[in-house]
Amino acid sequence: MNRTAVCIVLVGPQGNRNLGAVARVMMNFGFTDLRLVAPEADPASEEARHMAVNAADLLAGAGCYADLPAALADCHLAYGTTRRFGRYREEFALPDEAAAVIAALPAGHRVAMVFGREDSGLTTDELACCQRFLTIPADEALPSLNLAQAVGVCLYEAAKAIRVGGVPIPQPDEPASGAEYEGLYAHMRQTLLAIGFLDPQNPEHIMRALRRMLGRQGVTSREIRILRGMFSQIDWAEAERRRLGKGGTE
Amino acid sequence: MNRTAVCIVLVGPQGNRNLGAVARVMMNFGFTDLRLVAPEADPASEEARHMAVNAADLLAGAGCYADLPAALADCHLAYGTTRRFGRYREEFALPDEAAAVIAALPAGHRVAMVFGREDSGLTTDELACCQRFLTIPADEALPSLNLAQAVGVCLYEAAKAIRVGGVPIPQPDEPASGAEYEGLYAHMRQTLLAIGFLDPQNPEHIMRALRRMLGRQGVTSREIRILRGMFSQIDWAEAERRRLGKGGTE
Repeated sequence: MNRTAVCIVLVGPQGNRNLGAVARVMMNFGFTDLRLVAPEADPASEEARHMAVNAADLLAGAGCYADLPAALADCHLAYGTTRRFGRYREEFALPDEAAAVIAALPAGHRVAMVFGREDSGLTTDELACCQRFLTIPADEALPSLNLAQAVGVCLYEAAKAIRVGGVPIPQPDEPASGAEYEGLYAHMRQTLLAIGFLDPQNPEHIMRALRRMLGRQGVTSREIRILRGMFSQIDWAEAERRRLGKGGTE
Repeated sequence: MNRTAVCIVLVGPQGNRNLGAVARVMMNFGFTDLRLVAPEADPASEEARHMAVNAADLLAGAGCYADLPAALADCHLAYGTTRRFGRYREEFALPDEAAAVIAALPAGHRVAMVFGREDSGLTTDELACCQRFLTIPADEALPSLNLAQAVGVCLYEAAKAIRVGGVPIPQPDEPASGAEYEGLYAHMRQTLLAIGFLDPQNPEHIMRALRRMLGRQGVTSREIRILRGMFSQIDWAEAERRRLGKGGTE
């Protein structure tokens, strides 16, 4: 794993100065891939460029995306940052723990660190697009770090871990990409609604549980294909059932 | 060593916003003792107080000193931050190395982390007031961190080293038992044969892939129940399909 395989994704960033400060601290630690999802702030603003110092080119080259799945389409692992702890401790990495995982990823894997809006963070749906969560331990009196500070701490740890070098974890199969995950989830959602397993009033409740289950450890492209095949077969059976239920013929 | 024994000393700080950002990140990581040596920036300025967010009191309570020796008078150890490496590598600590030393200091010792001017750092004379030096590894393309970022990284490491017991660790849900796994796999196998997804000649080929996927990290009892519910619904749909296919009625 090297630093070009790590991208920083800012969802709905609001402060021009913060954009510049994020670009600067990325360059400080040798990272270059910045992605903005529906930014409210303007990376071309004078404030942003001033704060970026010599990282103005990095800032100008940031990719812009309409939504988080689009930004993560080529990523094999996404850490969503949050101050909220969920049910599963093993899903929540501290910055050094995430950095150790990142440093040990094999070449060719792309990993994202996703940061939410300054005032409200990532939504539940946005966190559901991430396989794992990352939290920076902070004091209860003022737990909210400035956005660029949070990016800085995470990249400081990532750079440290990559410098030391991790032992690559052998992976027999290709890891699934963000686009493959989202394709699977869309398919599952449709199928499970069709067969009446998901509550149409609140399908996301169970879908989030299924996302967590598959995302927690990561699945491979082959496993995605197997699951897609399984759901296609369920689709076929369900279509047959409906056709027959209508008394229809060929 | 606890966090009240650590002070942050800013020598000749120039930016009002930086003063506020330093106060904020100190409070984020639970540190409270801020000392300013001959500041050019104004801690009472609107910009400083705005950036401090809820740490405005910490900022207002910062001590002001005419020179660095005065600010360090009660400190037993001072780390001076610098990007310049001197002759002796052992004098230059990385942030985690300094943090380990700080965390191991006996009670009653006071330690300072000293940061220089935004544009020129600490002078040789000022560095000479410090017992040890601290440097944050950064990329040669842009080695200069924002002042508050540098303080943030150092205090993040110090808080990590001082923290005992770590962040609160929520207990995960009950992990699934072997019997629950096997019950699920038997159910899946039966259902997936019924809908024609598994090859009856070799159902285990795909079943092994599904077992690996779910077993690799483990699932919880709740997740097993969700999956069992999903397969029960598929069973129901399939039974309906078969009943209708035979033209049967109740």
